[in-house]
Amino acid sequence: MLYGLAVPRLWNATVDEHRRTVHAAIMNATATLVAEHGLAAVTMSQIAQVVGIGRATLYKYFPDVEAILVAWHERQVTSHLQELTEAAEKANDPGERLRTMVRTYARLSSGDAADRHGPGHHADYAVPLHRATHVQHARHQVHALLADTIAVAATAGQARTDVPAPELAHFCLHALASAHDLRTHAARDRLVVVVLTALGTPPATNDAAPGTAGP
Amino acid sequence: MLYGLAVPRLWNATVDEHRRTVHAAIMNATATLVAEHGLAAVTMSQIAQVVGIGRATLYKYFPDVEAILVAWHERQVTSHLQELTEAAEKANDPGERLRTMVRTYARLSSGDAADRHGPGHHADYAVPLHRATHVQHARHQVHALLADTIAVAATAGQARTDVPAPELAHFCLHALASAHDLRTHAARDRLVVVVLTALGTPPATNDAAPGTAGP
Repeated sequence: MLYGLAVPRLWNATVDEHRRTVHAAIMNATATLVAEHGLAAVTMSQIAQVVGIGRATLYKYFPDVEAILVAWHERQVTSHLQELTEAAEKANDPGERLRTMVRTYARLSSGDAADRHGPGHHADYAVPLHRATHVQHARHQVHALLADTIAVAATAGQARTDVPAPELAHFCLHALASAHDLRTHAARDRLVVVVLTALGTPPATNDAAPGTAGP
Repeated sequence: MLYGLAVPRLWNATVDEHRRTVHAAIMNATATLVAEHGLAAVTMSQIAQVVGIGRATLYKYFPDVEAILVAWHERQVTSHLQELTEAAEKANDPGERLRTMVRTYARLSSGDAADRHGPGHHADYAVPLHRATHVQHARHQVHALLADTIAVAATAGQARTDVPAPELAHFCLHALASAHDLRTHAARDRLVVVVLTALGTPPATNDAAPGTAGP
């Protein structure tokens, strides 16, 4: 009952706050239930019970389990994009900005992001989430952000110039997605070093040290 | 009617040869039809008509369209694995062997392999081909072959030694899979150079020239 809502909290909240809280609790509970039991086994009644609301109330928020899962996934994608943007903004040096983005994307791909609830990439979705419009849109934004970062680093002599930045960004996203199957932080850190080598970006001193890129 | 079987050919063939020819013709015709019209729109009757056999004969070979598509895919995977093995065997120098494998895998991933018939990776399969046992098995074999090739190259000073060969192979397969979205042979050749840089393997002189790895 991790996601059960304490009643006093609701009484004190404004209506908008309350709705947001319930909305989030529904998404978290659904993601967890689907990860544990699979999409086919999860019902609206179960979700309502775990969240601590009535079935009728649940249906005021979402028409079915799939819709909840799509909303949950959209929230994940948005939060990942935001995290990447913030990572890029943190560093002033073009090379360090690129290193930070590569490290952050590897961590997000590995699936132990701090904001993670619920189904992993291997979960048996009946919903083709990867084809959803919000995912396509977010992918384009991530690619554009990374291509820009690479282009700026290349101009500053911190990335290779013999391959167009959009192509390097495309390579990078595919290569870093492989972080998902890596079992240890050390392996993920080595992947970051390998990808940075490919980009012609000197790895930072701490990039090869195990555990530094951990969650 | 590309896949129609000429009758005299069948008369002359032995029964086994005949069965293999029909089997292949069914797979090719199905792959093409599914690529053109989508899995849902293709019927056993259509396939029989294109191949030039009766429906009853078709059912002696395959129970349904999905089974044909799975067999087609299995044949593709087997032929790709064979092509990779042959590519690895062609070169004697460990570095050249690795370069040849990387180039070959990039070409196979790009989807314009010479043996290609039918649906691309983007085709809307209702069959989850990527989860099929034969695909898992072939993936393991490709990974093992590439990891071996990298390990030998590393021992010969032709690949980096700071990252274990199986991890480099894992990176490599993900990075090269991105060749599928590349529009030109030149872009694919640049991807090969980027991946070889990541592996610490000096690219061959002709690796950066557009069109050299193309079919």
